[in-house]
Amino acid sequence: MKDSKLVAFGEKVREVRKEKKISQELLAELAGIDRSYMGYIERGDQNITLTKLYQIASALEVSAKDLLSD
Amino acid sequence: MKDSKLVAFGEKVREVRKEKKISQELLAELAGIDRSYMGYIERGDQNITLTKLYQIASALEVSAKDLLSD
Repeated sequence: MKDSKLVAFGEKVREVRKEKKISQELLAELAGIDRSYMGYIERGDQNITLTKLYQIASALEVSAKDLLSD
Repeated sequence: MKDSKLVAFGEKVREVRKEKKISQELLAELAGIDRSYMGYIERGDQNITLTKLYQIASALEVSAKDLLSD
């Protein structure tokens, strides 16, 4: 069973990425994360670390807080 | 060298924990995290996962966002 917090996080990453009109490939490259791994993250299948959270936020030019649900 | 984001995170956890007058031991127990591991987290020596971030936030009765720096 998927973790709802991770699913919400992945959905938020995808939403912000699309708002910024960035492909998943480019986001992966900007964040220094493997492309297939980024796919797992957006589907909520990957429990990433804080460091990766900050890398993704930085690549999307948003605050890490903006990617978390309440 | 320590990661400044992780150090800031650990300091924030400690700050909120002390505000709530909870011992590190109790926080570890409430969050379901090993006690020594909680010590590493508060010192910024541990790159935790999103799931653990949410567990700690829940144990402290704050939003996960409140534990992250900008």
